[in-house]
Order: sequence, then structure tokens, then C-alpha cells
Amino acid sequence: MTDPIREMRDHWDERWGGGLAAEASTQLLRVSQLLLGRLDGILAEFGLTLARYEALTLLTFSRKSELPLSKLGERLMIHPASVTSIVDKLVEFEYVERVPHHSDRRVVLARVTTSGRQIVERASAVIIAANNGFAGLTDDDLETLIALSVRFRDAVGDVGSTDNSVDGSTGVKGGGRRVDQSRVRRARITRSRSA
Amino acid sequence: MTDPIREMRDHWDERWGGGLAAEASTQLLRVSQLLLGRLDGILAEFGLTLARYEALTLLTFSRKSELPLSKLGERLMIHPASVTSIVDKLVEFEYVERVPHHSDRRVVLARVTTSGRQIVERASAVIIAANNGFAGLTDDDLETLIALSVRFRDAVGDVGSTDNSVDGSTGVKGGGRRVDQSRVRRARITRSRSA
Repeated sequence: MTDPIREMRDHWDERWGGGLAAEASTQLLRVSQLLLGRLDGILAEFGLTLARYEALTLLTFSRKSELPLSKLGERLMIHPASVTSIVDKLVEFEYVERVPHHSDRRVVLARVTTSGRQIVERASAVIIAANNGFAGLTDDDLETLIALSVRFRDAVGDVGSTDNSVDGSTGVKGGGRRVDQSRVRRARITRSRSA
Repeated sequence: MTDPIREMRDHWDERWGGGLAAEASTQLLRVSQLLLGRLDGILAEFGLTLARYEALTLLTFSRKSELPLSKLGERLMIHPASVTSIVDKLVEFEYVERVPHHSDRRVVLARVTTSGRQIVERASAVIIAANNGFAGLTDDDLETLIALSVRFRDAVGDVGSTDNSVDGSTGVKGGGRRVDQSRVRRARITRSRSA
């Protein structure tokens, strides 16, 4: 069976031209779908989704094992509503507890618990052994993938990409190119290829 | 604001090592999310999702503007249940009609209608003008992205990737490496990073 994605490119070129970009976008979305499936497959054994795992990991990375929910969402580059639902689940599993900020009671912190820390360690060991879901690619390939990704994210003004800075508290902007927040928000919300 | 993905890599390296693959996978998933957001943003103006657009496009590419639902699912690399729901929507919009196969009445075909063909032409013109959602990348970059994608898909035994062949009708297998169907299926079903 020939690769349906390659086949699609030929049709596209015959009909409209632009088959290269059409193939690249379809390949990329396919790879991310497979990668996600592999990661989710590993994490499911620990009762985690990738989003929950990423949130937990981030908390264990932070100096005091806790972060304000707003900061957590910023670093995960997800919508506040998603942070809430992820943290709800993690609290339910007792991997995370909600605690008030020591000086500003209006700020709610998510703090990772001992069992949350343990599950991150166990899941991460398996994720690392599985090379984060990758196969068939060398370290150089991964560096190339990162460089292309960063170039794309810069060009579309993604949050935190090299050439941009969005800091709500200071209003300071970096590189000078404006970040199209509506576009970023749309990308955050549109997380799945729904039917 | 530094890139949260870059920052995560440093933490990962300090804690466990393996930061390269961790960054690459997070970058890739982020890019695919942004790309999908851009494509969905364009297609929403036409009342289409990417999945519906891809199905419609594929039908217009086929010689008789029709395909059996099973074939449609195979070429789109999606689950039969997803094909059904996509075709249901397209029928509702009158972009597609369901017709019985001329010789085998058990086989149902999806056939693109005149208005379905028109919407594909209009949407594709915009998609092409937007370089299929890409920005900041040269044609060489896109070829690199494709090559890396194909190498990954080969390594994990994705359907239709260079080194594999899965053809239910003949039972012939290509490259010799077994396709892990359960893994492919899992990737198909797991389409979103759910909370």
C-alpha cells in the first residue's frame, strides 16, 4: 500500500499546485497524532493523560513544588479553563492539592503531593526509556525538528517563541512583532481534529 | 518571556537527562496544535473542519468523485466510526450523498455533490494562499519535515509508510516489519490532549 499522504500530494499538485505544503502539513499532523498516541499509551498505565502529566512535571520542576494556577497555565501554554479541569483531576487523584498563597489569599496555588511526585518519577522513567515517543530519528534529527518548530512558532508569533514577549504584568513586549493573541487562543482551544 | 518549552528542557536535563527528546516532542505537538488552529480557522469560514475538508477533497480527487466509505477511511487513515460521523455531517450540508455501489449493493459510496465540489475549490484557494498553514519555513524546510516524518512513521510501522504494506484484501505484507495495528489504532482514537 502506498502512503496515502504521498498519494494526496500528487493529486494536489495535478489539481492546484502547492502539494509540498499540503503533504508537509498532513505528515506533521499525522506524526503528532502518532506521537501523542504513543505518549498517551504509556501514561494511561499510570492513569495520566499527557496534559495531566505535563502539569505534574512542571510542578515538580518548580522550586517550592507549587505554582499559581495562572502561572501553570502560562507555562503549559493552555487556556485557564483547561488548567482548572486538569488540576481538578489531579486533586481528585491526590497528586496535587490546592493551597492559598502565603501572602496573597486571592491567589490559589497548585502544590504537588508526595504521591504526585512519585507518579511523575515512575512515569518519567518509562517516557525516557521510550525516548519521549520518538523512534527512527537521531539526535541531530530531533535538533532539526526543534529548529524548524521554533522558526514556525516565531513566524506565527507564538507565546514565548524567540522573537516575542508577552508579559501581562509589565506590558513589556520583546522582539517588536505583535503577538496575534486571538490566533494563539484559537490554537489553544482547537486541540483536536473533531469530526 | 522565555520559551516555556526551552525552559522545560533545561529542567528535564537537570533532573533526568533526555531533555532533547522531551523538547522535540513538546515542540512538535505545539506546532501541530498551532498549524491545526490556523487550518481550522480558515476552514471554519466555510463551515468545515479539517477532517471534513480532507474527506471532501479526497472525494473530488477520485476518478468518479465517489469512494466506498471503507476506502475513504483507509485513505484518511481514520477509524470507521469517524468516517461515518464525518460523512453524516457532509450529507447534512448536502456536500456529499450516500449512494449504493452499482454492482455490490452492500457497499455504500460517498459521492461529492456539485456544491461539495464548489466548497472544496473555494476553501482550497484560501488554504493554498495560506501555504497550508505554514509560515517562516522554506520549501527545503518542508521537504526536511516530510523526510523526518516519513522516517518516524516507518519506524513505528504506520499504515502506508514506505517500509510497510497492509492490504486486507490480499494479505500481502511489504517491508517485513510487522505493523503494530493496536498502536496505529490507539493513535487514531487518541486524537486530542484531553484534560
